[in-house]
Amino acid sequence: MKVPADIREALTALMAEYAMGIDDNRLEDWVELFDEACDYKVVMRENVEQNLPNVLMWCDNKNMLRDRVESYRHVNLYNLHYDRHVLGPLRFTGHDGALWRFDVSYSLFQTELEGASRLFSVGRYRVEALVTDGAARLKSVTVIADTGLIPSLLATPI
Amino acid sequence: MKVPADIREALTALMAEYAMGIDDNRLEDWVELFDEACDYKVVMRENVEQNLPNVLMWCDNKNMLRDRVESYRHVNLYNLHYDRHVLGPLRFTGHDGALWRFDVSYSLFQTELEGASRLFSVGRYRVEALVTDGAARLKSVTVIADTGLIPSLLATPI
Amino acid sequence: MKVPADIREALTALMAEYAMGIDDNRLEDWVELFDEACDYKVVMRENVEQNLPNVLMWCDNKNMLRDRVESYRHVNLYNLHYDRHVLGPLRFTGHDGALWRFDVSYSLFQTELEGASRLFSVGRYRVEALVTDGAARLKSVTVIADTGLIPSLLATPI
Repeated sequence: MKVPADIREALTALMAEYAMGIDDNRLEDWVELFDEACDYKVVMRENVEQNLPNVLMWCDNKNMLRDRVESYRHVNLYNLHYDRHVLGPLRFTGHDGALWRFDVSYSLFQTELEGASRLFSVGRYRVEALVTDGAARLKSVTVIADTGLIPSLLATPI
Repeated sequence: MKVPADIREALTALMAEYAMGIDDNRLEDWVELFDEACDYKVVMRENVEQNLPNVLMWCDNKNMLRDRVESYRHVNLYNLHYDRHVLGPLRFTGHDGALWRFDVSYSLFQTELEGASRLFSVGRYRVEALVTDGAARLKSVTVIADTGLIPSLLATPI
Repeated sequence: MKVPADIREALTALMAEYAMGIDDNRLEDWVELFDEACDYKVVMRENVEQNLPNVLMWCDNKNMLRDRVESYRHVNLYNLHYDRHVLGPLRFTGHDGALWRFDVSYSLFQTELEGASRLFSVGRYRVEALVTDGAARLKSVTVIADTGLIPSLLATPI
């Protein structure tokens, strides 16, 4: 589909902020990329394709995201690993006015403090984002993970 | 080289469709990204650099691609793994009128149904694509794989 | 931050050249992406976050980069592995006139001549680049590697 250049750029930049916010352990900045009325979910691809309702993590508004990051900060006094996201190009699937829908594939690597890196998860983000006056913010992010993941309250977002 | 913004965007979007078509197992959609007179090849980088002619897979028109996908559908009733492509930025190398040439690096991960993901292949696409009236279609895709690959009639495209 | 479309494209294209110059073993072309007065450094993320001064490799002008590539050519008559970089989208962090600052996440895979590929390093580039009259060149590249790396005079750049 045809997408205006400024929209494509604003949303590509938004996803770069998303990834680097997590990778830099600036989770509070990451939360600020979301709209107050937002939805963040982590699901397994297998469940999505079988229409099973299991979700590994679900925050259905921004305060829940804030709480989650705050809990994470209290439990993890030290960062136990480094995250590194590498994202592919955006694939736009539609829009309702200023609300744009797109998918982005991700690879996520983790590095332990000893310096060994490994593939942690691959999958895609299914995103809905608002672009108004050139500013972009996330309305809905569904992480659809190909890789099997263990639900954990202590984990950083994906 | 200088490439008009709309061309760069149309071709970046085309490669996002390419990757997600395979990753979603929408291989019929993937075929539709190609022109009727097209060429799709998978070769090993080692052979390319030594000017050896071995190809692991070759379809020199769109009907061959259609046949290949149909064969794959008959043999594989169930999808045995998930593919996940993460592509880098396009590097343009030239053009003849509306026919653009570029290279794109890829990483391709596979996830088994038990949920374990692994690196399957890395390499580059060498692409020729037509952009006319804002619509882009693939004329030629050569997958130059760094990773050693075993030729297989049953495999999904890369 | 807002970045003009032509700047974003010129710098995305510059990083594609950077990555493919190394991956194609065109290291002399890679050097030519830098300004004469330039700086190239490889550091560990752990050291950066602890403000430790260790650097694994440092060239503080273009002639040092040229020397380094020439040394590499004399020692390595044959290429012992293939590199493959997959880069994510650019995250712009500021600019002084025509000097733009941005970060880019990378994944770097290496393939041995037998054809086995593995994850070699992940991390980010912290870049300063000049864009004048549509031409972009690198002023400063700091590779901040998440993955532990062993300093080596014989290694290709990252």
